[in-house]
Amino acid sequence: MAILDYQAIKFDGTSSENRLDALSVEEGLQVKVNGEPLMITMRSPGNDAELVRGLLHSEDILPTINEDVEIIVESKNKGVVPVVNVNIPEDKLGDGYKNSRSFLSVSSCGICGQTELQEVKGELEKKGKFNPLELKHMFELMDGKQKTFRKSGGSHAAAAFDEKGEMICVMEDIGRHNAVDKVIGTLLLKKQLNRAFAITVSGRISYEIVMKAFRAKIPVLAAVSAPSSLAVDYSKELGITLFGFCRGENATCYSNMHRVNAIDQTK
Amino acid sequence: MAILDYQAIKFDGTSSENRLDALSVEEGLQVKVNGEPLMITMRSPGNDAELVRGLLHSEDILPTINEDVEIIVESKNKGVVPVVNVNIPEDKLGDGYKNSRSFLSVSSCGICGQTELQEVKGELEKKGKFNPLELKHMFELMDGKQKTFRKSGGSHAAAAFDEKGEMICVMEDIGRHNAVDKVIGTLLLKKQLNRAFAITVSGRISYEIVMKAFRAKIPVLAAVSAPSSLAVDYSKELGITLFGFCRGENATCYSNMHRVNAIDQTK
Repeated sequence: MAILDYQAIKFDGTSSENRLDALSVEEGLQVKVNGEPLMITMRSPGNDAELVRGLLHSEDILPTINEDVEIIVESKNKGVVPVVNVNIPEDKLGDGYKNSRSFLSVSSCGICGQTELQEVKGELEKKGKFNPLELKHMFELMDGKQKTFRKSGGSHAAAAFDEKGEMICVMEDIGRHNAVDKVIGTLLLKKQLNRAFAITVSGRISYEIVMKAFRAKIPVLAAVSAPSSLAVDYSKELGITLFGFCRGENATCYSNMHRVNAIDQTK
Repeated sequence: MAILDYQAIKFDGTSSENRLDALSVEEGLQVKVNGEPLMITMRSPGNDAELVRGLLHSEDILPTINEDVEIIVESKNKGVVPVVNVNIPEDKLGDGYKNSRSFLSVSSCGICGQTELQEVKGELEKKGKFNPLELKHMFELMDGKQKTFRKSGGSHAAAAFDEKGEMICVMEDIGRHNAVDKVIGTLLLKKQLNRAFAITVSGRISYEIVMKAFRAKIPVLAAVSAPSSLAVDYSKELGITLFGFCRGENATCYSNMHRVNAIDQTK
């Protein structure tokens, strides 16, 4: 599976250190059936034929297990979502195909027009600096509210904080995306979205969570575990300051580091 | 967040113990906009209004942050996916709405007709017994091949085993569903799907992974972490023997325990 090295800063509570961090690559893949766009799936490059074949099975697009299909790579250009096409005889298509739709809209990466992008980036830029020493306290606050996880070991948490590090909202869900959506939804319902300065999440960070933070205009995103490569790519592009591996006093920052004071400077 | 207790058996390498295990609840929620089905999302019940509001924002269905919308619960009948409707003025609908589609087909829970269900259950029933003492070795084999995780801390693994506990295939991906699809796809491409008896996965198990195992007719599913409640519900219904919290000699079985020999009996 593909891995890419990313320039990063590791904080350990007393100092900050520049380092290369190996990240799992996350990337979209568009699947066409008989030339028609079927879906875009987010995946790690490698073994695409196996992935597509498995997907077609699991989604009931091609239920026949012994059918030999050729999986043709149509494009591999950098910056473009790779496309594969699979030709399947009409009479072999399963019910999943009839119920399917085109996810083509996602191929624009979900990013709004360039004008809006620049506008939101400008707004994010105006927001203040962030002190990574606050992360320990922020995660302690979130963890203190994680009731479900302690019982089931099976839920994710997300929390929103204001510029002073005060927790505005914390939510749990079995899906990490849902936990973030619940937090953003809460802030919207309470008309407090403008107050949000940082989001913390348990687990990992995919590009979709970065998109959610961007749409919500929240400039700092911090996770307990690893970000994907695409999460870092998007964070850089969209003006989000992204932290991974936030454990106790440790944390690693992957993007828009200008928003972060080096710890030596904060003393 | 909702939690449900499930009857389970915990294995610790020398004995097996019946116990109640608290699981995070996973459940579908259908979202309608102006009366039209928009999507079904899998989530933990609770804070649905926040979830829906956040989703509408993140998906660019309702980009206006100050719009007050009423989120109306239309049905809460047991056994039916709950439905919420949100009325949004036409001129407030974002681009995400235009690109959206109905996920209505999912409301049948993705399960094929009753005839096919009984047929596959019958096939699963004929497969042999499973010895939980094999799990330790199976996860050691899978872990031994998890190259990416050791480097990035950010990928999932899945592996398929035959009835003798021999590993047929192992795959990694940033998404756990993708890892399982890659494994199933590999088996399909190699015409070895019939040989598969068990799948192991890193991380957690959602209902979608249970569906993938069912469609692939693989009777045993085992995960390092927690299953969701719906994963257990489906496993019970579909004839899958599900293990969670497989760590060293420990493992917890949640469904179709008749396929598992109690450890005392295997001596």
